[in-house]
Amino acid sequence: MTSQQSRTPENPSSENHSPENPSGEPEFGWHKGYLDGPRPDLRVPVRRVHLTGGGSVTLYDTSGPYTDPQVPTDVRRGLAPVREGWILGRGDTEEYEGRPVRPEDDGLRAGARGALRNLDAVFPGGSRPPRRGRGGRAVSQLAYARRGETTAEMEFAAIREGVSPETVREEIAAGRAVLPANVNHPELEPMVIGKRFLVKVNANIGNSAVTSSIEEEVEKMTWATRWGADTVMDLSTGRNIHTTREWVLRNSPVPIGTVPLYQALEKVDGRAEELSWEVYRDTVIEQCEQGVDYMTVHAGVLLRYVPLTARRKTGIVSRGGSIMAAWCLAHHRESFLYENFAELCDILASYDVTFSLGDGLRPGSIADANDEAQFAELRTLGELNRVAKEHGVQTMIEGPGHVPMHKIKENIDLQQEVCEEAPFYTLGPLTTDIAPGYDHITSGIGAAMIAWWGTAMLCYVTPKEHLGLPDRDDVKTGVITYRIAAHAADLAKGHEGAQRWDDALSDARFEFRWEDQFNLSLDPATARSFHDETLPAEPAKTAHFCSMCGPKFCSMKISHGIAEQFGGDAGATPEEVEAGMLKKSEEFAAAGNRVYLPLAD
Amino acid sequence: MTSQQSRTPENPSSENHSPENPSGEPEFGWHKGYLDGPRPDLRVPVRRVHLTGGGSVTLYDTSGPYTDPQVPTDVRRGLAPVREGWILGRGDTEEYEGRPVRPEDDGLRAGARGALRNLDAVFPGGSRPPRRGRGGRAVSQLAYARRGETTAEMEFAAIREGVSPETVREEIAAGRAVLPANVNHPELEPMVIGKRFLVKVNANIGNSAVTSSIEEEVEKMTWATRWGADTVMDLSTGRNIHTTREWVLRNSPVPIGTVPLYQALEKVDGRAEELSWEVYRDTVIEQCEQGVDYMTVHAGVLLRYVPLTARRKTGIVSRGGSIMAAWCLAHHRESFLYENFAELCDILASYDVTFSLGDGLRPGSIADANDEAQFAELRTLGELNRVAKEHGVQTMIEGPGHVPMHKIKENIDLQQEVCEEAPFYTLGPLTTDIAPGYDHITSGIGAAMIAWWGTAMLCYVTPKEHLGLPDRDDVKTGVITYRIAAHAADLAKGHEGAQRWDDALSDARFEFRWEDQFNLSLDPATARSFHDETLPAEPAKTAHFCSMCGPKFCSMKISHGIAEQFGGDAGATPEEVEAGMLKKSEEFAAAGNRVYLPLAD
Repeated sequence: MTSQQSRTPENPSSENHSPENPSGEPEFGWHKGYLDGPRPDLRVPVRRVHLTGGGSVTLYDTSGPYTDPQVPTDVRRGLAPVREGWILGRGDTEEYEGRPVRPEDDGLRAGARGALRNLDAVFPGGSRPPRRGRGGRAVSQLAYARRGETTAEMEFAAIREGVSPETVREEIAAGRAVLPANVNHPELEPMVIGKRFLVKVNANIGNSAVTSSIEEEVEKMTWATRWGADTVMDLSTGRNIHTTREWVLRNSPVPIGTVPLYQALEKVDGRAEELSWEVYRDTVIEQCEQGVDYMTVHAGVLLRYVPLTARRKTGIVSRGGSIMAAWCLAHHRESFLYENFAELCDILASYDVTFSLGDGLRPGSIADANDEAQFAELRTLGELNRVAKEHGVQTMIEGPGHVPMHKIKENIDLQQEVCEEAPFYTLGPLTTDIAPGYDHITSGIGAAMIAWWGTAMLCYVTPKEHLGLPDRDDVKTGVITYRIAAHAADLAKGHEGAQRWDDALSDARFEFRWEDQFNLSLDPATARSFHDETLPAEPAKTAHFCSMCGPKFCSMKISHGIAEQFGGDAGATPEEVEAGMLKKSEEFAAAGNRVYLPLAD
Repeated sequence: MTSQQSRTPENPSSENHSPENPSGEPEFGWHKGYLDGPRPDLRVPVRRVHLTGGGSVTLYDTSGPYTDPQVPTDVRRGLAPVREGWILGRGDTEEYEGRPVRPEDDGLRAGARGALRNLDAVFPGGSRPPRRGRGGRAVSQLAYARRGETTAEMEFAAIREGVSPETVREEIAAGRAVLPANVNHPELEPMVIGKRFLVKVNANIGNSAVTSSIEEEVEKMTWATRWGADTVMDLSTGRNIHTTREWVLRNSPVPIGTVPLYQALEKVDGRAEELSWEVYRDTVIEQCEQGVDYMTVHAGVLLRYVPLTARRKTGIVSRGGSIMAAWCLAHHRESFLYENFAELCDILASYDVTFSLGDGLRPGSIADANDEAQFAELRTLGELNRVAKEHGVQTMIEGPGHVPMHKIKENIDLQQEVCEEAPFYTLGPLTTDIAPGYDHITSGIGAAMIAWWGTAMLCYVTPKEHLGLPDRDDVKTGVITYRIAAHAADLAKGHEGAQRWDDALSDARFEFRWEDQFNLSLDPATARSFHDETLPAEPAKTAHFCSMCGPKFCSMKISHGIAEQFGGDAGATPEEVEAGMLKKSEEFAAAGNRVYLPLAD
């Protein structure tokens, strides 16, 4: 079998390594490989699945150096800064003495005993001085793209997507795609988010329960990316929020997103009315200096929209949205995020932090979907998107929420119109409210549909949605469910690489190559264990039947007989086939009517 | 709170019983209730969920007498024949001496030692003499509907759906709906399948592995209906196939479907070419006499279509389809099912067995979707649908399979056109091939979409699809995933009862009525256990926050504050709300800016 590719172009030359297994899962037959770029310091990681019949299938790889046995990793030291040379080479940024880290940043009382000791231990790997655009200039991929410059980051992402660097540059320049890459996150393996590219998946982590430790959050991040998360949002609240984020960033090969408002609220002890532009801006700068790649900003929640939610079935369900609504009410003033948006743009542009304009008024129930409050805010997000682009800031727009199937198209069509095709980044949407415990499924349905219709990135939902904090298994279930939704959308959008992946697996299935079928699946460990529950013996891995029907009822074996008779080698024309039928059936009878292939031994 | 209804109309009068728990799950707060019909022998079972604040939500109930503590059940005796009076009352059927049960019926050698003893033990409850239409007349719900007769079965189904009996009669008469109800299955609680009604879900069971016992299959059936399966197909093969079916039928409150070809193949020892119309007809009559309500018949697999599959990625994946293809090739003759279809119609009409015309050439991979072979067969199914209706036989059409999202609409639109809107009964469809182990999800996505567009019944897919036989947990996961897909479609079709269910749960969520939220969900046990993992304490069940965000970040609590201020009682107009804002925010400040409700103690 010849080498098949998916989510990447044909591979000119590459190295393969025997697969590593940080997760303790059984052997997957997944091999780390690299696609060479136009320059020696640009090698794009891929996952190679070697087929038992020879050849391999190359898949998009989000797992970072952790799955490369040649690269030693240590979460206490962080990942190598692969982008450093590119950033320095552009010569348009400068190091500066950053904002001093304060005890409050970690939710500790100012001057608390041990606070400073705690801060010394923020990240044992030590942190670099922060970097920003010289004289506060915009150093964003959008600014470069507009000037016609194709960056190394764009080339990297283009190879991953199997498109030309120029295509990536064009989409970013038009505001139809973003490449989130803070100059202070050099460990990043660049990727692009836009409807012209493969649909992406975000996984949320965060220690809102004091229980979960810093190492746990880092481990959740690497676990999520191993199963295919393209970006990770750190939604931590409470203690050690700054420290947790530092560890996550220094160890993350994927873009990291945050909601700065959460940390700002911690700094004012959870009293929304005490929030101020000054506290918020200070928090944003703190996070820009750490290397956060994109930030959710709920600047579309305007004072006059708040009453629109009063008669809703479930009011405001966005944390950020409800916090901003509370602030607006407390002061009876317009949102400080809206009023200071231009200044916020200049800050983000100088670090190349991407906006994820939050939908603070998204519906929290089927009854509230596509209502006046939601669409009023969406139109304001469209206005803010234009302002952000003028300031050279890359921008995504966040979407719902809970939306029944028949209202999904209307929702994304309006977003694409009022936001000038800016990448849509949707949570689900959930297509019904009645299945707590299964909201990865209620939302996976909506996610697949809205991605087919143009959503660029899907925010995963885990089985614990509405009920509790996702554990390691929930994170895996959420990521795989959303990879299914994203891939189903890629197929529906006619992506050739996506189709090749399905074809490779279906070929393996039809040819009873069980090992290949397992290894080509999104979750080989689960596929293999389900198979082995009924047919554990090794021979069953090559048997020309399976436990569902047994030998007598195996339709695929009968099909092989048919294919054999009628030259199913795709060479035969319908006419040849038709003509040969009678003769064939005589041979067939003479041969004892054996339509089954002999069992493999 | 006033009583809310879903999937049923307002309830005139009813009894409630304390809930039983055959499944060993924790207490659900589910209560068996009944809706009175127009006659004393017609009581429609419902599930009542009592709300902590008073009132209840009434839901469609497929679980049969097993969940009624007032009704003693014994699987060795079978269920009470609730339909018997209705069937006898029509006076158009007659008892007759049925076909003698033979050892071969159970896959035993003719005259084998112990064969007869085995047959004596077929079903300890003993079986009635079979019944059929006098002089072989059509005694189908279709025949009655066409004559303008509204049967008790139609009235029963109408009450379940919350529509008028006349609506049910009209849809059946037009061939747009079926009410599968063999006169030899008097234990049945009638239900209707059609796009004007609630979307239904079928669960497959069957002991293809010799391992699973008769009791296990009966238990799988009751388990599946408990979680919401509307019909069950017994796909047993191998030994004790007749006996297993007898036990399942005598204990089933839902319609039972089969694929007679499987048993016929057993009778000729698995040699497809030795099948004959005589063996097949004998098997069909055997199953009609037992009370099978609908039968999958692959009469659309024509000799000339077989070569169309030769160049497919995955050939023929339907067991029945591949068996018939093998037979056609072996004899180079047209299918005996197609050639004897009229006689088959007369047999089914005299027992009121519903056709489920099988799609033997459905695609088994994304690459084969909507191809020439599939659509050629579909057009033949349209022709057979017309013949069946002429003979008074109720008919459904089976659908794919593996179909990418962008080809689903084309698929169902063609089915509705060529089959004159006959109920479509689809397996999934699966929207990608790459996730073995998660095909309940890959197919749940396609199922929700195709149901929204008009599919009347969905055949579930379990996580074991392609890999092994579903166990008890897989059956539950498959049924609940498909209930989600069916309900999401009911919402998208604008079903008011479906919306009331979501509203009831969202009200409970917004009002922090955790117990109600659990009990209103499709799977209270799972929802409760996920919640308790992070907040196990009883007080947490009434806490005005949850473990996701904690008190400080609870958007819903903030929303309550907003709703309180702006008269969120749905009474206030936007103007009143707007006008009151400034004043309100002053009060709000005066009150210490408390947007949070006090915690419940």
